[in-house]
Formats: sequence, C-alpha cells, structure tokens
Amino acid sequence: TNGTYFVSGSAAPGPVPKGHIRLYSMRFCPFAQRTRLVLNAKGIKYDTININLKDKPDWYFEKNPLGLVPALETTAGQLIYESPITCEYLDEVYSEKKLLPSDPFEKAQQKMMLEQFSKITPYFYKIPTGKRNGEDVSGLVAELKQKFSNLNEDLVNKKTKYFAGDSITMIDYMMWPWFERLEIFELQHCLDETPELKKWTERMLEDPTVKATMHSMDTYKAFYKTYIEGKPNYDYGL
Amino acid sequence: TNGTYFVSGSAAPGPVPKGHIRLYSMRFCPFAQRTRLVLNAKGIKYDTININLKDKPDWYFEKNPLGLVPALETTAGQLIYESPITCEYLDEVYSEKKLLPSDPFEKAQQKMMLEQFSKITPYFYKIPTGKRNGEDVSGLVAELKQKFSNLNEDLVNKKTKYFAGDSITMIDYMMWPWFERLEIFELQHCLDETPELKKWTERMLEDPTVKATMHSMDTYKAFYKTYIEGKPNYDYGL
Repeated sequence: TNGTYFVSGSAAPGPVPKGHIRLYSMRFCPFAQRTRLVLNAKGIKYDTININLKDKPDWYFEKNPLGLVPALETTAGQLIYESPITCEYLDEVYSEKKLLPSDPFEKAQQKMMLEQFSKITPYFYKIPTGKRNGEDVSGLVAELKQKFSNLNEDLVNKKTKYFAGDSITMIDYMMWPWFERLEIFELQHCLDETPELKKWTERMLEDPTVKATMHSMDTYKAFYKTYIEGKPNYDYGL
Repeated sequence: TNGTYFVSGSAAPGPVPKGHIRLYSMRFCPFAQRTRLVLNAKGIKYDTININLKDKPDWYFEKNPLGLVPALETTAGQLIYESPITCEYLDEVYSEKKLLPSDPFEKAQQKMMLEQFSKITPYFYKIPTGKRNGEDVSGLVAELKQKFSNLNEDLVNKKTKYFAGDSITMIDYMMWPWFERLEIFELQHCLDETPELKKWTERMLEDPTVKATMHSMDTYKAFYKTYIEGKPNYDYGL
C-alpha cells in the first residue's frame, strides 16, 4: 500500500491481517522515518498507510488521538504512537537484531542522548521559517552549531564510529532523519566545524537501512517546495 | 544525609560507597519525588544529597550537565538523570516489585500516558504564576479541568482503581507528585467534577510509599511561601 494516502472522507482501513503490522506514516515525515528505519533495520515486514496530514481522515483520530504520525497498529488492534515509543516497542517485540542495549545503564544513556537531541529538532523548523519571514536567524544558527559541536565532542570523547559504539544502534537511527534533511533546509554548512559529526553522517549514508528509507535530494527539495507553498504533494516522486 | 544540602562553593561529595546508590534531590521537587517514590516502593536503600537549586554547586554540573534534579549516581560513577529515565533504570536494575509491565504493549501504553501527562505539569506553574501577576487564568484553569476530565474518563473506561490496573504501577507514581500539590496551588477544586480521578487521589494517599515520601500540607505551604518570595527555605520543617 506504499504510496496511497488517506484523506478526509476516506473510508477507514479494515483490521490488520494476521501476522502483519501496520504503520501509519507520511513519506517525508522525519518522525515517521524513525519507525521506518527500525522496521527496516530489524527486517520486519510491514504495511504502510500514508496519512494526508493537511487533510486528515476523521477515523485517524480514533487510531491516534493526537492525529500525528507515526503510529503502529497490530493484528490485535493495539495502537502505539510517539516515535521513540513505537521504536522501543518494535525492538522489544521483534528480537531480531536488537537496537537498544540490554544493559539498563547503557539503555538509560541512549534515552538521555535522545532527550538532549529532542531540543535540536525544533531548529529545523524555526530557522527555515524565520528565513522565509525575513527574520535574522543568525542567533538560532549559532545555537544549532553549538549543539552540533556538543555532539561532535561526544563522538571525539567516545572515540567511536557511532553514538553508542562502533556499530549503529537505536540512538543513531533516532537522530538520523534530521541530518538527512540538512541540505533541504540549507543548513549543511553547520557541519563545517564538526568533522567527527560530519564523518558520522557519511557513515550513516552508507548504511543499507538508511539507503532503503531515504528519498533522493531532488525529491526532498521538490516536496519541500510544495510544502512551503501550503500544498504539500505527499505523492511526489511516485 | 537527608536534610543537608549542597550550595555553591560546597566541596563535591566523594565516590558512592560500594553497594549504595545516591540520589541528588531537592526535598520539595515533584520530579525528584518520582524517583523517591520508586526507590521507596521497591525498598531500595539510597543516600540523598540535596542540592540548593537557587545556588547550585559548580561540581553538580559534572554530575548532570542540565543542573537539574533528580539524578542518580552509582558506585561505578554512572550518572542517570531525567526523572522517567531514572525510574525506568531503577525498575530494570532492581528486580524487587516491578513497577513497569513486562509486556511491550502495556509498557508502551504507560509511556504514552506519561507523554500525555507531561502536557499537564506546566499548568501547575502557569496558573499560580499568572494569578500572582494579576492575569486572568480562567482559560488555563478550564484547559486543566479538561485534561483532568480526560484522565477521569480513562479511569471510567478502564474500570480500574489505578491507571494500569487494580494495583499501583509506575504511571501512578509518575503522575502523583502534582496531585499531592493541588492544594498548595489552590487547584483542589479542579477535581470537583472528576469523581473517579478524585477517588484515585484518595487511594494514592493511602499508599505507604506515598505516605513515606510526602510532606505535611503545612510544610508544603510554608516552603512554597518562601519559594514565591524568591528565598526558598530548602530545609523547612527539619
């Protein structure tokens, strides 16, 4: 069902077939991409239902009262939303290729990193929006660079290829979608003074799971253009 | 060490003795109380170091870069902060009386509830602050009542004594500290139209762990008076 999307007035989808898991998504949403990364990394087969976020079907609020993506639905009709909660749920239910460490302290460390990272994502909206409104965003850009510098220092101190060791774990996938979009937001230059963080982005780009869930830069840019014009073309590039 | 507190200029405490766990706290902080509730409920022996949040010791930022309480420190020098992360860590490390369900979906449900509840806590600051500034807070009070009404409906639908069944679990302790403070903030009347939620608060007040971590209403009120005067007396009532 990839590619179809559900708008206001669409009939609600039926129950999730036995043995399947369903993802409510939007092809370009960075939060939904977190869940797509985990589903892909763990080799979980899933069905996708894309939601038109500008014109949501009424029934979707019965799936997720917040009306946001991502959300997961199981055969039993269980519903899980909030991207980090969906990802941890998948990691616990599907034992193939665990992405979170089993050690409680190491797991807590990943959660603390994620909590810190959650203070970075708003800049990816505030800076482009400010720019379009003709505001001076230099202060916001400086703040974002400082946060990138902290992430860079973390990698330098740890001497690891990824944020929790020399192989990719959950925290890398949780942070990735925003780095993938740096160029769309014209924020690529924010990596200029953070070489270890830049190397991390280059390593991530080589990951088969990252490759499987990303769009071409041209597709992102074209979608983003329709988005800022207020008429997002959710099916762009299909 | 309960009752002593550490101010700017205080020497840093030594390493955590073998087999102990240390809590950095503030006696009246609702977030730190979450961790105290879990420590008490699980019967974990812990040492407390209270931090003067108005005049923090420099070394505390090496324990928690955010400078906030609660934080936990282990004998190995591991540091864990952010209240829900400290609580989940304790529940995983100490197997006595598990507070989170082992079922991944039930655990996800608790996390979704907590995420919703995190949108309620700001009202406990916005409403009293607005009142002191002579602002019209009736809109904020109506919003808070609506959120209480949603919690009430949740209990009605579930037909359970607590938020995840007929015994207390993690989510009840995560929400409790703010309900304990309703009277201090003069928001007790917000429970008038939510009888099931009110019954839940009455049941919580009977819980030995809640009793062990709470202060008398007189102590809370007297501390809160010094707090709004800008000179919090962190040792009030000792």
